[in-house]
Amino acid sequence: MTLLEQMETLARQAKTAARQLGRLSAEEKNQALAAMAVALTEAGPALAEANAKDLEVGRSLGLSGAMLDRLALTDARIAAMAQGLREVAALPDPVGRVLDERTRPNGLRLRKLSTPIGVVVIIYESRPNVTADAASLCFKTGNATILRGGKEALNSNLLIARLMIEAGQQALGDRFPAHAIQVVPTTDREAIPALLSLTQYVDLCMPRGGEGLIRAVTECSKVPVIKHYKGVCHVFVDRAADLAMAGDIVFNAKCQRPSTCNATETLLVDRPVAATFLPAIAAKLAEKNVELRCDPEALTLLNSKPETRNPKLVAASDADWSTEYNDYILNVRVVDGVEAAIEHIATYGSAHSDTIVTADAVTAAKFQQEVDSAAVYWNASTRFTDGYEFGMGAEIGISTDKIGARGPMGLEELCSYKWLGFGNGQLRV
Amino acid sequence: MTLLEQMETLARQAKTAARQLGRLSAEEKNQALAAMAVALTEAGPALAEANAKDLEVGRSLGLSGAMLDRLALTDARIAAMAQGLREVAALPDPVGRVLDERTRPNGLRLRKLSTPIGVVVIIYESRPNVTADAASLCFKTGNATILRGGKEALNSNLLIARLMIEAGQQALGDRFPAHAIQVVPTTDREAIPALLSLTQYVDLCMPRGGEGLIRAVTECSKVPVIKHYKGVCHVFVDRAADLAMAGDIVFNAKCQRPSTCNATETLLVDRPVAATFLPAIAAKLAEKNVELRCDPEALTLLNSKPETRNPKLVAASDADWSTEYNDYILNVRVVDGVEAAIEHIATYGSAHSDTIVTADAVTAAKFQQEVDSAAVYWNASTRFTDGYEFGMGAEIGISTDKIGARGPMGLEELCSYKWLGFGNGQLRV
Repeated sequence: MTLLEQMETLARQAKTAARQLGRLSAEEKNQALAAMAVALTEAGPALAEANAKDLEVGRSLGLSGAMLDRLALTDARIAAMAQGLREVAALPDPVGRVLDERTRPNGLRLRKLSTPIGVVVIIYESRPNVTADAASLCFKTGNATILRGGKEALNSNLLIARLMIEAGQQALGDRFPAHAIQVVPTTDREAIPALLSLTQYVDLCMPRGGEGLIRAVTECSKVPVIKHYKGVCHVFVDRAADLAMAGDIVFNAKCQRPSTCNATETLLVDRPVAATFLPAIAAKLAEKNVELRCDPEALTLLNSKPETRNPKLVAASDADWSTEYNDYILNVRVVDGVEAAIEHIATYGSAHSDTIVTADAVTAAKFQQEVDSAAVYWNASTRFTDGYEFGMGAEIGISTDKIGARGPMGLEELCSYKWLGFGNGQLRV
Repeated sequence: MTLLEQMETLARQAKTAARQLGRLSAEEKNQALAAMAVALTEAGPALAEANAKDLEVGRSLGLSGAMLDRLALTDARIAAMAQGLREVAALPDPVGRVLDERTRPNGLRLRKLSTPIGVVVIIYESRPNVTADAASLCFKTGNATILRGGKEALNSNLLIARLMIEAGQQALGDRFPAHAIQVVPTTDREAIPALLSLTQYVDLCMPRGGEGLIRAVTECSKVPVIKHYKGVCHVFVDRAADLAMAGDIVFNAKCQRPSTCNATETLLVDRPVAATFLPAIAAKLAEKNVELRCDPEALTLLNSKPETRNPKLVAASDADWSTEYNDYILNVRVVDGVEAAIEHIATYGSAHSDTIVTADAVTAAKFQQEVDSAAVYWNASTRFTDGYEFGMGAEIGISTDKIGARGPMGLEELCSYKWLGFGNGQLRV
């Protein structure tokens, strides 16, 4: 069997499974998820064994300690996976929601109903717990999943999927589709373009990971892709800002968890408040040893203030303005008002999350209207762009695309819709 | 300037225009559309001249009479284009609708708001009136358009876009973006892949036309594509159908306008009613000389009934079941119940529009749940899948995709959304 044939088999099986998934009730799906949670918890030793093989592969590949740590399935992580499945089970069923309903003059009643998408391919990197998280969200939404994790996590991923399938079958018997959750069983790199050429079976691909991976997937895919490349988020401190609030927001947006995509990378400060605000925020950020990469004006200003005390103060390069650091590094630029801030964000931003701090409602409204990002805040941290924080429950990712979902993708964003028409013999005239 | 550079210029200009379009009020957009309608009406002689050049090109390319007819801009068609613009102006503004609103426990208020998509590329074939239709729908939704029509329509298309732009500028002055509506100024085939590689500028491509065009566009595009390849629609006449209603629906779905994508191509008849229903519908379809391509059972049955009187009764090939005829041809198959009908549609259908005729609500519900098509009807013609019939107003096309819009695409379906967050200093904990 060629690689393409192998991928076709997976995809065809997934398509069949998707049809069967569409027939499960909310209760059945939740029952299966609960059984999967139990199965993962009870399979601790088997998971440890499969994971040990992966860790060995990882070491032989020369993975760093941090990478090996991400790959490791500890008892705590297994418990967290199981807990995740229970939380997904507890969420309301997103399928079958009536999104619109209308009756036409001819008496034809139309109902727009949320449905599963169908077959969803998820591509991700090391962490094997993503397998359970992504598969459970797709299962709850009635989507069949094909999962492709990092090559060093293959044994763990295959076992997690098998445990979930077996538990589902025990819970629901024949009604549980045997191919609802599949892991690509090869580490061949060519499997991805092969799988993503199968437009007759695959409805959506969601890559998660570094920008390189996501660009490679987007480049080769013939099926729709929902993604975000990177999170270059901004805080704009307007001249009418409450500067204490602004300081707290900048500190939180940068330092609360710098490794996340919704952490802020660039601080834009309105010129009239720059001389007051910049030394204060620099001093505050020094607590976390944040490196500041500054435009000439900010650099001159900060260098002239001895109280700045920031340990790392450097000149920003042009590339810095569009870089996601995921680290204690912050770009700083002095701009001339909200227009210039919007312009900077349009030029260098990644359309993820941006915030304005101001007491001026007119300026805030302009910023929120004109900044073309998935989430645009007024007087709040950029860190809120997240499925849990938005009240959606678990999320499968964040989209900076504009077709399909935008922003956090929870269960509702993993749905499509269809139109049902109810007639009593209506004919087109 | 290379072709790619030329396309980059178009796309970059469109991106800038999209930002400016986002700032126009509903009143301004409607005012511009009204001015465009007047301009098209008044430009009759100039349009006729540009169109005459195109018709000459078309004749030199050896286009058929039917193709030349589609290309021709008659006075009636120009009046219809202008009327179309006025109708779009009269529709409610789809931008700025509040799609969701929620306040989080920390007091952060979130609002999900409809927004323009950004830059939309429309690729289509001969008819130059599509230029005005598509451009007006995109303009009303605040999207910048790049239009690529058939090569034989270039002069007409360029002039229509220019007239619309000039009228917009006269109506709104500097506030009207000069590049809101652009026609690709070359007929080079390579312009399409070049344009659709520009993911940094282009947000969506909508190809309209034959399956070959749409497959070629989808194959080369790096930007999201929303489309439908073809409309292979079905009527299933269930054993519990009101057979008189079923006859009317089949006749309407096939014959009311066979050239449309929502016309029915295949009739599936439940075995218990086949002997009664098939001769009756065959006789009715004979009025329009409909050719019937039958499975062996239907063929035997119809051949045995002298009252059938259908002039063309042939055996269906396997390829026929997935063919969109756009003509007075109907596939006919006898199936064993709703399950078999659903299976047939899953195998051969195009996920466009399908209908069940039955008096049995349970069977209808099963059909409507399990048929995975954009529109699934109960006791109504498939011909209703259409923006006007759905009460959306003008449509830009119909989608059989599941990401973004599905089914008729009116103004709301030409929108994306973003999340606005309103805080008073909220920090992530």
